[in-house]
Amino acid sequence: MFQSLELGRKLSKEDFDAELPALRSAILAGQQALRASGQSVLIIIEGLDGSGRAELLNRLYGWLDPRGLLTHTFWDPSDEELERPEFWRYWRALPGKGGISIHLGGWYRDLFSNAVFGKMSDSELTLALEQRHDFERMLALEGVIVLKFGLYLPEEAQRKRLMVEKSTPDDRWGGEGKKAALKHRAKFLEVAEQVMRQTDSHSSPWYLVESECARYRDMTVGRTIARAMTQSTAWYQSWVSEAKVHFSQMGGGAPALPEADSARVTVLDKVDLSKSMDKDTYRQKVEVLQAELADLGWQAWKAKIPTVIVFEGWDAAGKGGAIRRLAAGLDARLYRAVQYGAPTEEERKFPYLWRFWREVPRVGHILMYDRSWYGRVLVERVEKFADPSEWSRAYREINDFESQLVHSGTVLIKFWLHISPEQQLARFHEREQTPYKQHKITEEDWRNREKWTEYAHAINEMVFRTGTGFAPWHLVSAENKYAARIEVLQTVVDRLKEAIAAKAKR
Amino acid sequence: MFQSLELGRKLSKEDFDAELPALRSAILAGQQALRASGQSVLIIIEGLDGSGRAELLNRLYGWLDPRGLLTHTFWDPSDEELERPEFWRYWRALPGKGGISIHLGGWYRDLFSNAVFGKMSDSELTLALEQRHDFERMLALEGVIVLKFGLYLPEEAQRKRLMVEKSTPDDRWGGEGKKAALKHRAKFLEVAEQVMRQTDSHSSPWYLVESECARYRDMTVGRTIARAMTQSTAWYQSWVSEAKVHFSQMGGGAPALPEADSARVTVLDKVDLSKSMDKDTYRQKVEVLQAELADLGWQAWKAKIPTVIVFEGWDAAGKGGAIRRLAAGLDARLYRAVQYGAPTEEERKFPYLWRFWREVPRVGHILMYDRSWYGRVLVERVEKFADPSEWSRAYREINDFESQLVHSGTVLIKFWLHISPEQQLARFHEREQTPYKQHKITEEDWRNREKWTEYAHAINEMVFRTGTGFAPWHLVSAENKYAARIEVLQTVVDRLKEAIAAKAKR
Repeated sequence: MFQSLELGRKLSKEDFDAELPALRSAILAGQQALRASGQSVLIIIEGLDGSGRAELLNRLYGWLDPRGLLTHTFWDPSDEELERPEFWRYWRALPGKGGISIHLGGWYRDLFSNAVFGKMSDSELTLALEQRHDFERMLALEGVIVLKFGLYLPEEAQRKRLMVEKSTPDDRWGGEGKKAALKHRAKFLEVAEQVMRQTDSHSSPWYLVESECARYRDMTVGRTIARAMTQSTAWYQSWVSEAKVHFSQMGGGAPALPEADSARVTVLDKVDLSKSMDKDTYRQKVEVLQAELADLGWQAWKAKIPTVIVFEGWDAAGKGGAIRRLAAGLDARLYRAVQYGAPTEEERKFPYLWRFWREVPRVGHILMYDRSWYGRVLVERVEKFADPSEWSRAYREINDFESQLVHSGTVLIKFWLHISPEQQLARFHEREQTPYKQHKITEEDWRNREKWTEYAHAINEMVFRTGTGFAPWHLVSAENKYAARIEVLQTVVDRLKEAIAAKAKR
Repeated sequence: MFQSLELGRKLSKEDFDAELPALRSAILAGQQALRASGQSVLIIIEGLDGSGRAELLNRLYGWLDPRGLLTHTFWDPSDEELERPEFWRYWRALPGKGGISIHLGGWYRDLFSNAVFGKMSDSELTLALEQRHDFERMLALEGVIVLKFGLYLPEEAQRKRLMVEKSTPDDRWGGEGKKAALKHRAKFLEVAEQVMRQTDSHSSPWYLVESECARYRDMTVGRTIARAMTQSTAWYQSWVSEAKVHFSQMGGGAPALPEADSARVTVLDKVDLSKSMDKDTYRQKVEVLQAELADLGWQAWKAKIPTVIVFEGWDAAGKGGAIRRLAAGLDARLYRAVQYGAPTEEERKFPYLWRFWREVPRVGHILMYDRSWYGRVLVERVEKFADPSEWSRAYREINDFESQLVHSGTVLIKFWLHISPEQQLARFHEREQTPYKQHKITEEDWRNREKWTEYAHAINEMVFRTGTGFAPWHLVSAENKYAARIEVLQTVVDRLKEAIAAKAKR
């Protein structure tokens, strides 16, 4: 694979200087086209030590219009980053529409050092690469053009370059210094081959660049970036329409529901709406559970366990009330509740899950989402705010997001609060008659109500596709508010206990 | 001061329940008014241990519409916060227009424990309070209504409450637990009195609330918040117009320039524009200085010194070129450059300095601002994007911002790149004729040029008012690009050396 990169390609100073003005114009025209198209570019620079990654970055920095340009090195992680799933820092560093981010190493940097040092098994590496491949495809579908450059040097050239380069404290080879780069060269290239093979794709290809001659290297990368930006709109449109066909055929990668299930009976019909509880029993139980929760909240904090609780449910099913009863049991320093409505201008500049990722809690903290990423496959699907190719791929993206949360140690609890249409009607009327509840009932609520069957179908599919082993749905019977709140509290108490006990064992 | 709070005010359950619906309606109406007015509310809850601050927070959480509501506890600081000036975390937690933030303790929390434990001298405490007072006034002028609640309990009542309360790991009395709260009560109240005295103001008053009866406490706070939000627009308008008069009389708190200085001669006339350098000398020097810089960058990183470099100057004075020459000397992992244009929709939701504060670098990192907070007193002043009361108070706000940077250990370097109008004209023409530079020259540049004298006057006042001992301006002669770049590089090298040596001595 890498032999084709030992051709000694060079660019003379004269040729470089002669081409430079055209290149710079092309890059700037590309940036203008990019802004107009509303897409964004994410450039990843990886490669062998000594191949001049930082040098190239500086050159690009000089060529690109700095407006909307950000660089990220993913080095020196902060505790805010270390206390969250691995991809949090990458989500944080995504470019907004019209912008460009340059990442040194990006989501490959740590992977390379872990793989080279044998800290990952083959299957772990395969999985990690699969995850990256999925992530990049999602980015492409969301309008982010990912350009990955792998810089290559023949062995002798690398040796020479490393002798000249100064050591820096950022050594990804475990403090062994520059010698290690040569020592691990063969292994690095072996890993690189697998990385390229598994994550090279039509939408986000790897560009391997011979880097012995800095002028050749920089001009090649510059040209590639300019072309990608200029052609992005046309290229992107055709790719997206292909991808859309693919996705509607494949159902976004998740197994399709058998036809019969799309008929009238849904998972919601299995929820026992007759569950009931009287006020006195409720009061006693709520007090006991809240006291328990207060204690568990601090235990989870000490055990450094983060918790994410998702509340979804019909309008007027009692999400807010359930959240308040949970909150009342918790110390205010430990939890936060966020509510989601339509995305803001800023949020619309980023991929769909961006605004949810950014709230992911630090260890020991509890975050309650009052509505969540499931909006994509519920309201956005039913109201057609998202097109089928968007919501159908969301299941897989959501499962991946939740998998990352759970596998980084987060307790993830998902509630669907279920009520009957009759109960909803009664509560709507009650809201209309209570002055401080009137704001909670809008035209939209009445409109949503008319689409009950469509929503039930979407909920059914959501539960089917995202009710995974690691992140199951709790379908809560909420016809009786007291019973529902107790069920929510009890579930959270049980899940926290379980997680704390499991962590203590380790 | 606190005796008036030992009146045993109470609210019976019946009265509380009877008033509750009206209160909740008032709060929700207040939030609607707030959204319509484009202001925001910041609620600080402070008080004696055992007075039920978290309890109150939970109650408010139940009453307020959670959209746009955020709570912050300023506990458990992250290293991202610890590595920046103290107020970074408060800027980070400001509410956006139409939103509400509730802060437990806010910028008083750490101050109380430091003052109670004698970690601050009297003059330090006075200064810290003055800073808070200024900060709150700025917030008020920017449309943030700050409501500060101090919860009070008589000694006996506090003792009883603390016996019932559970211990939590968040102990602001140095791990001594709950007993310490009583032991330090007298000192706490002594500090509290000074805090109230120095930071109570018409625009952001302290509300002291008797808290023995939780119902009385919560209802009182609830009423106050509802009233503030409902009356905010009318009240705010009248306060702001008063403040504007005050500010235009006082010149934003900075000493006014003597009349003579507003005549034709400005500090810029003192800059020696004849400085020159030939290309060969430049090439030699630039190489030496960049090598030195590369080394100093890593030394500063090891010494945990953050650096902020501000570039201001005439259009076409060579800011971008100077930044690139600096960048070329630095490792890409250590620096970042940000460029500022007109604020985005999101940025306009926050006080003026917010978008600059949020980029403040972590220790060991270097941030270059290509244009900066000085836009307020330059382009926004001259083009009348900001009214006189806004830009005239900006000098003081800027000085405070910079003082915080410097006093938290940041190396702050400010450049003004100066050229003659003739030189600018020549460069404009050159830009028009170079394809990849054409994007750099716009109608606006030509318009700005016509206001040269007005800008010169604004620059003169800026240098006078913000050229402080801790953050002096470097006026760089940029008529010759080579000389200018070397001067910039040399200044950065000298300042970094100085800072590294000073830190090593300590």
